[in-house]
Order: sequence, then structure tokens, then C-alpha cells
Amino acid sequence: MEKPKTVTCTAPVNIAVIKYWGKRNEELILPINSSLSVTLHQDQLKTTTTVATSRSFQEDRIWLNGKEEDITHPRLQSCLRESESWLLVPLKKIYRNNKPTCHFFCVLYLVRRLARKRSKDGDPASDSMKLSHKVHICSVNDFPTAAGLASSAAGFACLVYTLAQVFGVEGELSEIARQGSGSACRSMYGGFVQWIMGEEDDGKDSLAQQVAPETHWPELRVLVLVASAERKPVGSTSGMQTSVQTSRLLKHRAESVVPGRMVEMIEAVQRRDFAAFAELTMKDSNQFHATCLDTYPPIFYLNSVSQQVINLVHRYNGHYKETRLAYTFDAGPNAVIYTLQQHVPEFVQAVQHFFPPETNGGEFIKGLPIEHVALPEELRQAIGLEPLAKGISYIISTKVGPGPCVLEDPTQHLLGSDGWPKKTL
Amino acid sequence: MEKPKTVTCTAPVNIAVIKYWGKRNEELILPINSSLSVTLHQDQLKTTTTVATSRSFQEDRIWLNGKEEDITHPRLQSCLRESESWLLVPLKKIYRNNKPTCHFFCVLYLVRRLARKRSKDGDPASDSMKLSHKVHICSVNDFPTAAGLASSAAGFACLVYTLAQVFGVEGELSEIARQGSGSACRSMYGGFVQWIMGEEDDGKDSLAQQVAPETHWPELRVLVLVASAERKPVGSTSGMQTSVQTSRLLKHRAESVVPGRMVEMIEAVQRRDFAAFAELTMKDSNQFHATCLDTYPPIFYLNSVSQQVINLVHRYNGHYKETRLAYTFDAGPNAVIYTLQQHVPEFVQAVQHFFPPETNGGEFIKGLPIEHVALPEELRQAIGLEPLAKGISYIISTKVGPGPCVLEDPTQHLLGSDGWPKKTL
Repeated sequence: MEKPKTVTCTAPVNIAVIKYWGKRNEELILPINSSLSVTLHQDQLKTTTTVATSRSFQEDRIWLNGKEEDITHPRLQSCLRESESWLLVPLKKIYRNNKPTCHFFCVLYLVRRLARKRSKDGDPASDSMKLSHKVHICSVNDFPTAAGLASSAAGFACLVYTLAQVFGVEGELSEIARQGSGSACRSMYGGFVQWIMGEEDDGKDSLAQQVAPETHWPELRVLVLVASAERKPVGSTSGMQTSVQTSRLLKHRAESVVPGRMVEMIEAVQRRDFAAFAELTMKDSNQFHATCLDTYPPIFYLNSVSQQVINLVHRYNGHYKETRLAYTFDAGPNAVIYTLQQHVPEFVQAVQHFFPPETNGGEFIKGLPIEHVALPEELRQAIGLEPLAKGISYIISTKVGPGPCVLEDPTQHLLGSDGWPKKTL
Repeated sequence: MEKPKTVTCTAPVNIAVIKYWGKRNEELILPINSSLSVTLHQDQLKTTTTVATSRSFQEDRIWLNGKEEDITHPRLQSCLRESESWLLVPLKKIYRNNKPTCHFFCVLYLVRRLARKRSKDGDPASDSMKLSHKVHICSVNDFPTAAGLASSAAGFACLVYTLAQVFGVEGELSEIARQGSGSACRSMYGGFVQWIMGEEDDGKDSLAQQVAPETHWPELRVLVLVASAERKPVGSTSGMQTSVQTSRLLKHRAESVVPGRMVEMIEAVQRRDFAAFAELTMKDSNQFHATCLDTYPPIFYLNSVSQQVINLVHRYNGHYKETRLAYTFDAGPNAVIYTLQQHVPEFVQAVQHFFPPETNGGEFIKGLPIEHVALPEELRQAIGLEPLAKGISYIISTKVGPGPCVLEDPTQHLLGSDGWPKKTL
């Protein structure tokens, strides 16, 4: 048996500060407004993906977090076999209720098509023989599902990036990542990234672009406050569909509010103006959740823990008469806090005080180590909230980080030298 | 001593289905959009006010729920003495932080001024001698503050209506009630009432108007679900100020969404189209709370109990594939439910099931009696929420009712024949 060609890469999570909510084209995943995010560091949160390709593989196969995705649906198989004539849009419609599987194969198809095109154009990096080989894909997230972080963004960014390495495709790949999961396009770059909504019907101009690299603002810190989740909220795909169909305020936000905010946010990042960055971040998170409430039936992602975090942040900032903290919430109750390095230890004490954890040990804080300080009595009194026990399970402490990377060490491959998942998974 | 002239009236609470949130003029209480409400029946919820006037009274005095309001502030007294030259707007600015006292005297001034004007115009009902007499005012609400129902609307409507009786003023009075508390103008009429925002700077065209009388839709029922309040939320006066200053979505709502909704709502009421009425009511409540969340810092009036009521209503309607229930929430967590008579018993069982009360006795339901029925098992399963114990303290069961009334029975006066509060208060 020929030894498979194997590549392993990692890709980061990103957290939007100007939110993406609503598609103007469901199949191509084209948004109704531009958005902007911060890429988190992969030392704390990442997806790892290995892709192996070999003449001896019979089918394209994929294992996610140790479990194989079922791709035995006859229509999906037939599409995969005749991939050149495969019509992407109808396939997506057929598989709408099995989104991840369908989208994984969309992305695989798109990378192969791009590789084939560049091969015909004479790109020396591509190898037309290899393009007909089947792939084995193995992907794991190192962050718990409970963290409520959109794993699909890191997952699709990682898949696209790794496939591109295998098939020798270079250049702009965020357009393909976007078609796996909208916000995945922003995980294709490190630092501060905007997803430009674009205007074309085919989505060719709906791309991610780096606004500033990860080295631009070294003092910026990110804390993920993982709320003790009660129940599964409404999924973002169906949630944003309902919002687009029913919320008058979402339409106004997308058309009239976000364009100005994108300009302001890019300026705030470029100037490293924390107060401007933080206030816009909070306002935009609140406006996104306002449009969810204006959806019919309404969607609630913020629970009582989220409300308490919001109150805590405003009272903290109010006490210091300075915007030292910003919160933002995606489609779930977990808060992501942006702050500067020097404010982290005190804020973490405040969180521990107002959300007394189940175990007060070191388990409460994961990620970058945080110095222990005392919580000033006057700050505690100024905040003056009733402590909410066990509301927050733990905090992940991290910072801004780079985009996807290739792992050179072959011991880190998730597929063995035979191209099949290692037993240790 | 001359026997005082004494009049006692009652006035109703109203619950908006198209919400009022935001003033374009703080002093004259002119709103940024029109609104529409349902007047609740006074058999269940009302304010009672007695006004006595006598040559022998030394000062205007007022007792609210058994406690005298302090009007000893020297500037307020000087304004009251020279009431003709009293400048309303500056006074309101001075007393902004003591709003109820100030507004009571505003209203008193305005009714006297109107009576004086009509007396000069030769209206035979007015008596210019009486206008210089001081008044004693005594007012009580028969609903608990905990019910979170805006007592100021019923209170000011009752005060204006009673003063107008004493001073013999007839005709349009909602413009004066509006200057006591905005939504009070809608409590000046029974049935279905719109508050037309008006366009004039002086507010002369910002008036309430009956859309349909209380007899128009006899099957309509109203249930007030009183949530076990945790803490005092942000007051509506300061809340709406902050919203007007900071929420882009509120501006859009007021200018572009509400005008169309007013037309649709009036049509739905006129046609007695419950589904249209209910859906618009729910959407408008949600949009109001969305603008609160878009306020900076955000305002939360809906808590976890409110969210559960919203989910319960949507799942109930979903089960029957028919809109049988509507919720609406004002500046607090209590839900007001609109439904038709035939659906009340089953819905109340659902509330008791999903919000198990502290005492399961008759105390849970106040107001109009409700027949006991069993909760259908398939409905219970279709709703499928986790019961939230003690979330709702009790339910007030009521219906649409008439506007303010004069109580002819002198034993019901809150002031004795000497013009002073009765001992029993």
C-alpha cells in the first residue's frame, strides 16, 4: 500500500465585536451586513485537523471528535462521485437538515475544484493526479462543547486550510471557508478580522480581510465566562433565518447601523482606543440580542447570569469612571470579556465574588495564568449585586492570536501512517 | 364651618398593546409615537379619589394611599399661591426628582386654569368663586404595588376626572391627564383607546381617543400574571430618557414601525380579529423590550419568569395551531395575557402547572371567577417546559371596562364631612 500523504493544521476560534446575524443567501452563506472579530489564541482554544490522501482510499471519510460522520446517503454519494457536475446549491437544499455533513463535503468539493482550476492554469504546486484521490479527514476541538464557542468557525477554517495544504492550493481561501460556516471565514486570519459582506450575487466579493495583525495590541486580553448552561438555545442557523423573516429592527440594523459601526470599529482598533472599542462592542452585542427579541417568536440567548454579567461590567466601569471592560455574547449565555492586561486580576476576583463557584480551587480559571489580588472593598460595594452562586462554571483566560498554522511534527497527526484514525482518539 | 363640596370618582388601569416608550418633550409629556391600550375593568383594579373644596381650607393638601405628600418646599408653595403666573415648564424642571408631587400640582393648576377660562367664556357650569378655594385630595389604589401595574395612569386619570367634577369642567381632559403621567390620558376612556401622538409643539393635539367602547368585544379577557419580583427595575421615566438618547432602534421603531402598526391594530380591534390583535400585541411588546436592550447601558425588564411565560404562550398557541393567547409586558416582569373567555380555564391550569404556586389554594386567582378544568395531558407534553416553582405569585382575572365614573354614594367618600381623611384609611 502506498503511504498516504498526510497534513495536520490547527485553526482558531474568533469572537465577533460587530455581529453577523442574518443571511441574504442561505446556500452561498452571504450575510446581510459586514462583521468584525478578534481571533483568539490557539494556545487556549483551537481545532486540529489531519487530512490524508491516498490512491488506496475507497471513499472520502470524515471523523469529528472521534466519531465518523455518516455519508452513506445515496444521493450524497452520487454527487461526490460525479463532483464536476455536482450542483452545489441544490445539494445544500437537500441536506439542509443535515448541515454539517453536507457543508463538509461542499468545502471538500470547492477546494478540489479550485485545485483543479489552478492545475489547468498551470500552477506548479497542484498535482492533477492527486486530485482524484479520496481523503480521510480527522478533526478534534480542544475546547468543551459546553463552552458554547462556535466550534464550526474553527472547524471549517481548519478543514479548508488543511485541504488547501494537501491539494497545494494557495491564496484567498476565506470564500470557501465562508461556505462551510459563515463566521469560519474570519478564522482564516489572525488578529483583528473583518468579513466584508460584498455585493455580488455569487459571493465572490464576500471575503475576510485582516484589519490588524495579532501583534498590534499586545495588552488586549480575552476572558470567556462559561455560564452553567441550563438548556440548548435556538440554533444560530434557524434563529437568524427567523430573524431575517420577522424582525424589522434587524433590517434597519443591517442597512443603517452596521455600516457606520464597521468604520468606527476599524478606527478604534487601529488607534488601540480601548474605551471606543469596548463601548461599540457592548452596544453591538446588545443590539444583536435586541434583534433576537424583536424576532417572532422571540429568541432569548441572554439568561439571568448574562444579565448579571452585563450589570457587573457597567457598575465596574462606572465605579472607575472609565471603560475598562467590555462584554459580548453570541448565540448563548456565555460572556466574552475584553479588557487590558492590567485589569484582569481584579476583574477575575470580582467575578469570583459575584458568581461564587462550586469549587473555589484552581479549576475555576483555565488558560493564561492570572495573578491573585484582593478585591477592593469600595469596588465590591459600588457593584453591590446579590451574588449568584454557581452561575459561572469557569473562566478561560486568553488573548489575541494568529491564524491557522501547519503542524510540522508528524507525531501530532490524528491519522496514523496507514491513514486511519489512531487508536488513542 | 361651611360644609365642603365633596366628589369621589374612580378610574381604571390601562394596558398598552402598542407601547409608549420615549418622549419628544419631557415637560409637556409628548410621546415619540402613538400608542393603543385596553382599559381594564374597575371591578378588579381601580384608583378611587375624593376631592373636597371649602372656603375654610388653608392649603391644597394631598393624601396618597393614606400618607400625606409633603408640599412644604418653599418654591412649590410660592408657585401654588401665585398660580396664574406659575410657569409650568420651569417648575417641572425644578421638581424633576420629585415627580409625583410636582405632577399632582401641575394637574391641579391645569384644571383650575381650564375652569377659569371656561368661566370667563361664560360656561354656566363653572363657578368663579369656588376656583379660589383650596382643595383636599385623598386617593387610594385597590391594587397592590407588587402587581407592577402603572398606578400613576389610573391615579392621574382619577385626579383629573375628579377635579374636573369639582370645578365643573367638562369636555376633553386627556390633554391634562397626559401632563400628569403620559399613559394616564388613555385611562380617561373605557374600551380600546388610542393616544394620538400629535404634531404641535404645545401638545394641544396629543390626546387620547376611544377606538371602540368596552361593550365592543365582550369575549375578551385579561389575566395579569404577577411575577414574584426580585428587585426594583429601572423606572420608566429615566429608562425612556436613556432609550431616546441612546437607542438607534427606538428611533426607527417610533418613526417607521409604529405608524403602520397603529393602523393594523385599530383594524384588528374593529374586526374583533383575535389572532391579528394577539400577534401584533406580542410583536409590539417584544419590540419595546428589544429597544430597552438596545439602550446603553441596556435595560432589562424581562426576567426568567417572563421568558418562561413567553415560551409557554408560544408553545400553547403552537399546540393548537391557532393564536389563542397573547402576552404583553410593561416596564417590569409581570405578564398581561389577552385571550378569549373560552380559553381562560385551561390556560390558567397551564400556568398553575408550569409555575407551581406557593399555596395552591384559591388565593392564587383573584378577580373574575374561573371554572376549574383538567389540563389535557397532550397539551402539557406539547408545552414541555420545566416547571418554575413560585415564579408567579397570583393571577388577577379581569376584562375590558369603562372609563372613569363618579361614585354617587356619599359613604364612599375618602374624606369625611369635615373634608379631612377618614380615620379608617
